[in-house]
Amino acid sequence: MSRSTFPGGRKVGLVALDGRSGGARIKGVVWLVGAGPGDPDLLTVKALRVLQTTQVIVHDGLVSDEILSLAPASAQRINVAKSKSRHSLPQDEINRLLVALALDGRTVVRLKGGDPFVFGRGGEELLACREAGIECHVVPGVTAALAACAAVGAPLTHRGLAQSATIVTGHGAAGADPELDWAALARPNHTVAIYMGLSAASIVSARLIEAGRAGETPTLIVVNASRLDERRIIATLATLPKAVEGVCGPAVLIVGEAMVLADISAGPRIDQAVLEAAQ
Amino acid sequence: MSRSTFPGGRKVGLVALDGRSGGARIKGVVWLVGAGPGDPDLLTVKALRVLQTTQVIVHDGLVSDEILSLAPASAQRINVAKSKSRHSLPQDEINRLLVALALDGRTVVRLKGGDPFVFGRGGEELLACREAGIECHVVPGVTAALAACAAVGAPLTHRGLAQSATIVTGHGAAGADPELDWAALARPNHTVAIYMGLSAASIVSARLIEAGRAGETPTLIVVNASRLDERRIIATLATLPKAVEGVCGPAVLIVGEAMVLADISAGPRIDQAVLEAAQ
Repeated sequence: MSRSTFPGGRKVGLVALDGRSGGARIKGVVWLVGAGPGDPDLLTVKALRVLQTTQVIVHDGLVSDEILSLAPASAQRINVAKSKSRHSLPQDEINRLLVALALDGRTVVRLKGGDPFVFGRGGEELLACREAGIECHVVPGVTAALAACAAVGAPLTHRGLAQSATIVTGHGAAGADPELDWAALARPNHTVAIYMGLSAASIVSARLIEAGRAGETPTLIVVNASRLDERRIIATLATLPKAVEGVCGPAVLIVGEAMVLADISAGPRIDQAVLEAAQ
Repeated sequence: MSRSTFPGGRKVGLVALDGRSGGARIKGVVWLVGAGPGDPDLLTVKALRVLQTTQVIVHDGLVSDEILSLAPASAQRINVAKSKSRHSLPQDEINRLLVALALDGRTVVRLKGGDPFVFGRGGEELLACREAGIECHVVPGVTAALAACAAVGAPLTHRGLAQSATIVTGHGAAGADPELDWAALARPNHTVAIYMGLSAASIVSARLIEAGRAGETPTLIVVNASRLDERRIIATLATLPKAVEGVCGPAVLIVGEAMVLADISAGPRIDQAVLEAAQ
């Protein structure tokens, strides 16, 4: 297989020859790309370049329109979060879709909010590509917890307040039998970032306190981190359930002593108009 | 203070007026910027833009020359990792330096490998700025563990193999009294990324196995993640000490069942020459 596969390549090929079909069949390439938290300026340079030269984008609901608009108008956009029935495509169908597009010779960008390998099920898509003999590259991204921390100036780790950080998902934790290791998460001087955590907020609060984490542990909630409609809320672990009542949207909950440094009054992101005016 | 502070701004001011000194004194701004893991293409668009328009860059040894070369030739570069005595500046001196430069009216980029808030001591620098009344913005970055995972196609989290991930530092763990919670880190189906972990590899291996983590747990070592001289090694938790004998450089160790998916034979990063040829 050629290593020099870059979408939109002209001088170098953008496809890999499949020797097994006698050299005649041309396979595409799948790029698993982290779109970052939402602000197009938090795309990596590499993600932006891949996006700007792709033929097909397969994305979910977490990727903002602002980011999708950076792809060529000619690129086919496939939203796997909204099929006709308003349900997301099951993961194995997404896997099959990526493989089928690549087998058809297309350069495919699988665009995911945040980083593809942090609760993005990117591993499953990569494995499907490997099994089908499809070349697959991964472009890491800025993950939501880091965008949330940057927005309010509260570090994920901080001497004396947080010597480690754990990332978990609140998805599934809303049920009766959450599979999180509450005792481990309850130890002090340790930051816990809960992705997709809004619906699990009450359980997270109750279980962590039960397991010994102090009710007054500062807790940051950031909805739509880095987007123009970003919303920040400061609570404690004990007041978390009340603090998120009526709140909706993609959110990360960050529990930990270091969140005492959060300044939620800091201005929202510097928007594109200001950036352009500054050029 | 003006919110419209962007380095290099012409139409909008790049400075904030300090009302307390009668309006005459002009303060600069500090940007805490994550430079990502090393590949300039893994800078965010925002980091690149800030870097390209700054007056002063304060950086440490982890930021590559490739990235520093993206700043204007006229920008002052201050390497705090290499003073005349070849020792790093102590953190409080770095804090004072940032504040002094900003009080002098400069736009300062404090450039840090990875993300400023993941073992980057960015929190301390931000607090120093806050205390001095200096406006400070944070630009998050791609953190090393994610770059390492992307390079080898092994997800940080993966259904059935890793339902959470913890980030710790090996710095300090090389001493007699490592302050890590080994019992929590030893639980299975959980990825542990150890930053600056090379010198602590033997202790990490021994303590995790002692605490019950299986010796055969797959362990990935990536040195210089995303750089042209990136090096990947696959070991198990038990063979980790032997696997890193003689290895040096900035490295992340990633211990966890999901690392079984790592393909260290994947090509190294697509280098700039190939990217340019593809344009």
